[in-house]
Amino acid sequence: MDKRAEATDTPEYKVIGTRPVRHDGADKVTGRAIYGADVHLTGMAHSRILRSPHPHARIKSIDTSEAEKIPGVLAVLTAADFPELEDKIAHLGEGSVNLAFLAANCVAKDKALYRGHAVAAVAAVSPHAADEAVKRIKVEYEPLPATTWVLDAMKDDAPLLHENLRTDEMGEKGDKPSNVASHLHFETGDVEKGFAEADVVIEREFRTASVHQGYIEPHVATALWNEDGRLKIWTSTQGSFTCRQQTAELLQMPISHVTVVPCEIGGGFGGKIAVYLEPVAALLSRKCGRPVKIIMQRNEVFEGTGPTPGSFVRVKLGAKKDGRLTAGQAWLAYDAGAYPGGMIGPGCMCVFSCYELPHALVDGYDVCLNKPKTQAYRAPGATQAAFACESVVDELADALGIDPFDFRLKNAAKEGTRRVDGPIYPRIGLIETLEAARNSEHWKSPLEGENRGRGMAAGFWFNVGLKSSVSAHVNPDGTVKLLEGSTDIGGTRASVAMQLAETLGIAAEDVHPIVADTDSVGYTDVTGGSRVTFATGMAAYEAGLDIRRQMAERAALLWECDANDVTIEGDDYSANGNSMTFREIAANLHETGGAVVGRATVAPEGSTNGFGCHIVDVEVDPETGKVTILRYTAAQDAGKAIHPSYVEGQMQGGAVQGIGWALNEEYFFDNQGAMRNASFLDYRMPTCLDVPMIDTIIVEVPNPAHPYGVRGVGETPIVPPPAALANAIYNATGVRMRELPMSPPRLWKAMAEKAGSRE
Amino acid sequence: MDKRAEATDTPEYKVIGTRPVRHDGADKVTGRAIYGADVHLTGMAHSRILRSPHPHARIKSIDTSEAEKIPGVLAVLTAADFPELEDKIAHLGEGSVNLAFLAANCVAKDKALYRGHAVAAVAAVSPHAADEAVKRIKVEYEPLPATTWVLDAMKDDAPLLHENLRTDEMGEKGDKPSNVASHLHFETGDVEKGFAEADVVIEREFRTASVHQGYIEPHVATALWNEDGRLKIWTSTQGSFTCRQQTAELLQMPISHVTVVPCEIGGGFGGKIAVYLEPVAALLSRKCGRPVKIIMQRNEVFEGTGPTPGSFVRVKLGAKKDGRLTAGQAWLAYDAGAYPGGMIGPGCMCVFSCYELPHALVDGYDVCLNKPKTQAYRAPGATQAAFACESVVDELADALGIDPFDFRLKNAAKEGTRRVDGPIYPRIGLIETLEAARNSEHWKSPLEGENRGRGMAAGFWFNVGLKSSVSAHVNPDGTVKLLEGSTDIGGTRASVAMQLAETLGIAAEDVHPIVADTDSVGYTDVTGGSRVTFATGMAAYEAGLDIRRQMAERAALLWECDANDVTIEGDDYSANGNSMTFREIAANLHETGGAVVGRATVAPEGSTNGFGCHIVDVEVDPETGKVTILRYTAAQDAGKAIHPSYVEGQMQGGAVQGIGWALNEEYFFDNQGAMRNASFLDYRMPTCLDVPMIDTIIVEVPNPAHPYGVRGVGETPIVPPPAALANAIYNATGVRMRELPMSPPRLWKAMAEKAGSRE
Repeated sequence: MDKRAEATDTPEYKVIGTRPVRHDGADKVTGRAIYGADVHLTGMAHSRILRSPHPHARIKSIDTSEAEKIPGVLAVLTAADFPELEDKIAHLGEGSVNLAFLAANCVAKDKALYRGHAVAAVAAVSPHAADEAVKRIKVEYEPLPATTWVLDAMKDDAPLLHENLRTDEMGEKGDKPSNVASHLHFETGDVEKGFAEADVVIEREFRTASVHQGYIEPHVATALWNEDGRLKIWTSTQGSFTCRQQTAELLQMPISHVTVVPCEIGGGFGGKIAVYLEPVAALLSRKCGRPVKIIMQRNEVFEGTGPTPGSFVRVKLGAKKDGRLTAGQAWLAYDAGAYPGGMIGPGCMCVFSCYELPHALVDGYDVCLNKPKTQAYRAPGATQAAFACESVVDELADALGIDPFDFRLKNAAKEGTRRVDGPIYPRIGLIETLEAARNSEHWKSPLEGENRGRGMAAGFWFNVGLKSSVSAHVNPDGTVKLLEGSTDIGGTRASVAMQLAETLGIAAEDVHPIVADTDSVGYTDVTGGSRVTFATGMAAYEAGLDIRRQMAERAALLWECDANDVTIEGDDYSANGNSMTFREIAANLHETGGAVVGRATVAPEGSTNGFGCHIVDVEVDPETGKVTILRYTAAQDAGKAIHPSYVEGQMQGGAVQGIGWALNEEYFFDNQGAMRNASFLDYRMPTCLDVPMIDTIIVEVPNPAHPYGVRGVGETPIVPPPAALANAIYNATGVRMRELPMSPPRLWKAMAEKAGSRE
Repeated sequence: MDKRAEATDTPEYKVIGTRPVRHDGADKVTGRAIYGADVHLTGMAHSRILRSPHPHARIKSIDTSEAEKIPGVLAVLTAADFPELEDKIAHLGEGSVNLAFLAANCVAKDKALYRGHAVAAVAAVSPHAADEAVKRIKVEYEPLPATTWVLDAMKDDAPLLHENLRTDEMGEKGDKPSNVASHLHFETGDVEKGFAEADVVIEREFRTASVHQGYIEPHVATALWNEDGRLKIWTSTQGSFTCRQQTAELLQMPISHVTVVPCEIGGGFGGKIAVYLEPVAALLSRKCGRPVKIIMQRNEVFEGTGPTPGSFVRVKLGAKKDGRLTAGQAWLAYDAGAYPGGMIGPGCMCVFSCYELPHALVDGYDVCLNKPKTQAYRAPGATQAAFACESVVDELADALGIDPFDFRLKNAAKEGTRRVDGPIYPRIGLIETLEAARNSEHWKSPLEGENRGRGMAAGFWFNVGLKSSVSAHVNPDGTVKLLEGSTDIGGTRASVAMQLAETLGIAAEDVHPIVADTDSVGYTDVTGGSRVTFATGMAAYEAGLDIRRQMAERAALLWECDANDVTIEGDDYSANGNSMTFREIAANLHETGGAVVGRATVAPEGSTNGFGCHIVDVEVDPETGKVTILRYTAAQDAGKAIHPSYVEGQMQGGAVQGIGWALNEEYFFDNQGAMRNASFLDYRMPTCLDVPMIDTIIVEVPNPAHPYGVRGVGETPIVPPPAALANAIYNATGVRMRELPMSPPRLWKAMAEKAGSRE
């Protein structure tokens, strides 16, 4: 699987680029790892949440008296138990959030805005008593009209979610109530002029359904409100410090009074950044004086937590006959879900990010409607945009009779290209990635057979830096304990530890990474934005340098020389004819002043710019519209693959999730606004039986902003699949699919319409 | 209670010297604090230990087959499950230890050396099944003669504990087998010449019984041997890193593969440094694949864990008529218990440590006998020696007709005095402490009434420095999390946090101390030797300076100036007309580069030299020999009292424990070598009903080796009580008691003998 297209001048590494067993491997495969559900505290109470059966309803009254009479019930909570919060924007992790909205999403305040919206919660001595009590809570609802499609929600007569939302505050519209929460506008050059210069202009409209991140582990949180006013939370979260901050802000307490213990996490993909259960468990704990645990059921995860936005995207591209793009225009409307603050920003920024466009115009709308508040999902907003853009690019290349790789290479973004939203790319690896994909055995092999087609698409995700802090201490046996604040979702214990090991010249196994709680490590931003191997890895490198300096001082003490005279090569320290290994110096720590502790905090700015290119072969069953994936290859610029297996794993996982979006997954709403497929039986995520092995090609164009050249890798691979599949389906069937998912009934219908139009 | 005799020139502190609520107060008083017994892990097995009924016996065979048949039994362990260990000395915490002996003390290998010696252990699904199984283990013993009195054990015909112990290796004796494990010899000047110069010479013999540390919480440990060969231990220990090292050495695994989580500790006093249960729980866990928990019963604590040595001490002192001491000689024999390595060293070093003696000679013997291996107990070895020395000093002063304070002040050790074992004192506070005691209202008040007497005595304990490491990170709300490796037995969370708060100019409450596990903080030595407030406090101070530097850099970033231009006064940072508080800079951390993490490692050498002086008034019931304490005052040089309440608490607690030694406590052995009072009902520790309020006088002669002048305070106050009480009893009755405890039957007998001799 190690088909890496190596860039030239790659340094020789000892640890980086190898594939050691992951440090948390044994705990994971033996079931020892402690997930949120494994937390059991003495006297712990169990909570269940009452959720709205209506997609939109005014809450006229809540009567909890009967629930409180159930034996074993310890506390009942409604929105009235939350402190009053101003409409205040707090900056948290990857984005920012309106605290009043965040609180209302945890427990509905005056209105339920989506089916599944939490309305009340019960803590009881057993889950059964809590279940029983929840049923006895009497809520008087006044049902209101609802909408679940973004273009409907933008209409003048649409049911309004927030009576006081005036978009002139955030967008361009006047002062009348609206569901449009914000309008983004990016412009470069003169798009009219650009289209006038084009020989061919194509404009198309695309629709995507809401899909869920689909983490296997449901949300779970346990909270203990201590008698001294301190709060401890054990939870499954992507960001322990973000969870700490959100919870503290919602409960109006000092953040240092909140300790978040990040349990092992069974998938997040962006959906475990916002708090849902933590403040509820905390307030219930304060009420009943016991630790309180809440675990969501699967239907609560689907109906109550963040899907990615459903969307409507219109893309128009113009090109010269030689294939040179002259202009691009995009109009995007994304679901915000029940509260403002969706993924429209990155959608707008990514839609044309693979190409050098002299003239471009992008408009984007963040639209509230009666679905759960949307959340980040792996390259949030980029997949919807790429589906549109890469489909039109493909159609344009086809119309001009140009090979899709040639067309993309001719227009590919490179160092110096200015993105429509402003930034100018530093050294990036899109061209190398496209070339690696084109040179792959997959692309070079002919695809034969009926109803078969091959497609390809490019994709981009920024990746972020943000803030990471680590500390590390050297053991007398020459190993190093590494404390990091980054929760490990995709193998980052290994990728961060390996960078420290490389820096110290020791084995990967000799660094023991520990994901610490918020009391035990410096502030570290969320595990998201493909940032951990990049930024926390950079902190590990810096901490390694700090340790090297101190180890040199210890060696100098032993040799009675100046620390500046000590030369370090890998794990070898030498001066004046003396020489000791890292391990040997470590064995002398007790005699030379005690522990050596390294630490580093980093806050790298800018993006690490991950580009990918996917190739897929499909066969379409003409009788049913079912798409079978015959072969799939994902190429991607990792900058430098620290642990290639986990880079490959990210590429494979992202591709499979993208395949799910493309072919099967959708929130299926009935005309009452109720999701009808809120279970893994009915919500069809791909399993290993649905996809072939995903082949991977790691491209390594080192990121100049990282000591080991690392770029983020986790998110990019979800971006190309829907477009690549749509392009492959077109090549198999002649049908251009412009709505996700391209599920059998929808594809069958499109094929039938095309056949009908031919008749 | 704040009767502090302030030294001059004490700096003005904002936090130090105040009495904030302790940081762990709420957890302690509400029962939330997690002690070892509170650890419950999924699938956890429970263990019970089989102990020898004989004080000395060869183990001929162990048949575990019937035990293994008990339903629910998961594993049975004997010494055969331990790896083979060389006779190797490992340096651990306050002292060093022979690993083969340490292992054999955990589970007897070929011989049981004391009644209560562990012989086998069972892990089962319930404590009941384990109890039942332990009874079915068949051990064939060959009982051997035993001895429990130190002078008996030194006789040529004494039963030998270790057939291969040849004292010529460690002591002066020839190559024949012996129970004498080592001989110490210190000499200064010419003692014969010194005694020849004396006008009065007094020589007396003293005996003390074994007494137990008497912590309320029994030993408890839970271990999980992970499938990847890593071991995690939750335990009640004074030193998590020491426990880690001992366990790793005994099990012959890399220390970095062992993680020790120090639970809250319910008293240690020196008795929770050596491992007993941890390696047993670990091996049982490896055998059965589950976490295994062992809790001792109280009788196991008495019979199986470390008392302080019983002792025989002979002290000879000579003085001129003017009260000037000319010479001192001491001969000390201390129980080592079942294995070599007792407290004879500090006993020898402390016996004359309060006085300037031109000529001195000290011989000490470490003697094995059939008692549990002795362990450190608060100023280990010093109380026995002080009982002897301070009794003879009192008798000498009395014989010369000199006031006991005058006599001691004339001879008191001071800066420049050379101790018999070599070190020369830096600035110390014995004279100030004696003067403070003499100037106390207590000493100045007359004592009237029949059968009453007043006594006083001085006392000394070295206190140690050793190694401490802390790290600390600043929260955006201006508070600081402080990670330390020192388990908190006596309020050191507060005393360490307060030093960091003082250094940063913030409130004590704004530092949140956390006692971290061995993975999460740099190597830190045991909580013992009265070292934590001194050494870990020093590390906190250094970490505070590290944080100040970084906060100044952040301020400089905000003000666009050079960090060297920033002036810091308390929590105020200023430069070029700009000014911000610590809290204000903290609020800007996210915008100026992320977390600020401070760290420091210290390894201060030498002693902090704690001196105390106690005064006690007693009334002796002539009918029963019962001693009632009427009034008690303890004065002590704390260097600087960080949190005076906890200094007072240490002084009070030490005094009460010393009163226990003096009047009641003893291991009562029958002629079979069996302890007959192994319960708190029969082993008479003082309760609050037995003692009056202990008044305290904190003397503050700053320690020049600490930034805030701190000296250790925890151990010194146990040293003077037995001598002070013996001196008071003499003044009440005319009887010089030279054997501990001075219990009613013994005192009554002595009084009767004296009355008889008069008749």
